[in-house]
Amino acid sequence: MLKEDERLDFLLAEDMRIIQSPNVFAFSLDAVLLARFVYVPIQKGSLVDLCSGNGVVPLLLSKRTKGTIVGVEIQEKLYDMAVRSIEYNHLEHQIQMVHGDLKDAPRVLGYEKHDVVTCNPPYFSTPPTGETNLNEHFAIARHEIMCTLDDCVKASSELLKQGGKAAFVHRPERLLDLVTAMRKYRLEPKRLQFVYPKPGKDANTILLEAIKDGKPGMKILPPLTVYRENNEYTEEVRKILYGESK
Amino acid sequence: MLKEDERLDFLLAEDMRIIQSPNVFAFSLDAVLLARFVYVPIQKGSLVDLCSGNGVVPLLLSKRTKGTIVGVEIQEKLYDMAVRSIEYNHLEHQIQMVHGDLKDAPRVLGYEKHDVVTCNPPYFSTPPTGETNLNEHFAIARHEIMCTLDDCVKASSELLKQGGKAAFVHRPERLLDLVTAMRKYRLEPKRLQFVYPKPGKDANTILLEAIKDGKPGMKILPPLTVYRENNEYTEEVRKILYGESK
Repeated sequence: MLKEDERLDFLLAEDMRIIQSPNVFAFSLDAVLLARFVYVPIQKGSLVDLCSGNGVVPLLLSKRTKGTIVGVEIQEKLYDMAVRSIEYNHLEHQIQMVHGDLKDAPRVLGYEKHDVVTCNPPYFSTPPTGETNLNEHFAIARHEIMCTLDDCVKASSELLKQGGKAAFVHRPERLLDLVTAMRKYRLEPKRLQFVYPKPGKDANTILLEAIKDGKPGMKILPPLTVYRENNEYTEEVRKILYGESK
Repeated sequence: MLKEDERLDFLLAEDMRIIQSPNVFAFSLDAVLLARFVYVPIQKGSLVDLCSGNGVVPLLLSKRTKGTIVGVEIQEKLYDMAVRSIEYNHLEHQIQMVHGDLKDAPRVLGYEKHDVVTCNPPYFSTPPTGETNLNEHFAIARHEIMCTLDDCVKASSELLKQGGKAAFVHRPERLLDLVTAMRKYRLEPKRLQFVYPKPGKDANTILLEAIKDGKPGMKILPPLTVYRENNEYTEEVRKILYGESK
């Protein structure tokens, strides 16, 4: 089942495993935080995860909802890892992966049909070629090569029903771009949380949830700090990652 | 020197006094946080405080800069209290109050001539008449009766030199309106801080500094929490308010 450089990692607190490869992609804390942050309907519903990578967000979401989840990933190698992880965890009845461009997702999955869209998009605007990561897999995951932030927000909005929720994780430097794009596509920002690497440091991650055609008025959730002064995870993050409190 | 219902309060950590009246206006923690948050040139420069009230922000700023400070206030009673507080503290050489409409401030004080503008604007869009505070002084200070957020941001931008800094304090619900207005008037948001009333609660105040014609890219500063679980001020806020650490 595993190929070449792949390994079968434990998926944190959950009783699941996930296929990863250090040469292609390993999921980040950001994806875990996104899967925990987003609102999910518990009993049913249709959820879509864009920029799905090796499927970490759909796998984690499956523990929070009985709804169906579709992951969309453009890189075949990652798509293929996600499919096999879903099979390994016997979640084929709930999670489906689509190999393709998220810009085509509304056409393929249906316009205004879904309740929730999550997205952990590439963080960096495409830089001068020299600076782009030489590993093509990393470059596509990290830089806006195959899709821009605007593409991601547009596709999210097209997928969502009125009142549906779009949740993104991104860098603080792009907050205003994200908010502007959301409002352009009828997604009203409603819940914002900042993630700080350590006490006293600037935030390095944002989590933002918007409602399609929602009323203006945004809440700022309590801050989340990842590491303590001694470089250990904070209790809050340990709980999210490992389900333990000590 | 004091009139009717006025009292002469200590101005916190500083060796200053300020005239206040419970029937008109007493400065809030927000104004103190704004005066501490904003960038100030230390040795010289021209600073303007809009919606200046009883002059608390100019008084506090005078301890951080040798530059000149002008406060603009539309309510005569508050303007008058500010003038007398400035005299009481012997700061007439550094702080000047202007009684008037902030929309006229650029014409009166000069276009693109100033280094810093601070503003603690009315927080609430004008509500249905019945809900407006019956005390006219409070109503004007709290609701967008005499000026809108757009007016405040426009005047700030017109007053500022290129590279000058505008700092606002506001409510999280208005963050997107504030950011949108700033970008409309060439003010690029650069430093954002959230103030949380208590651990585990949503933020209730934002501090945002923008640079005129600045490059995009915003920092999210460490969170500031006001009260501890036991309802005492946190050490950080005690320091800001009283200059003491215990």
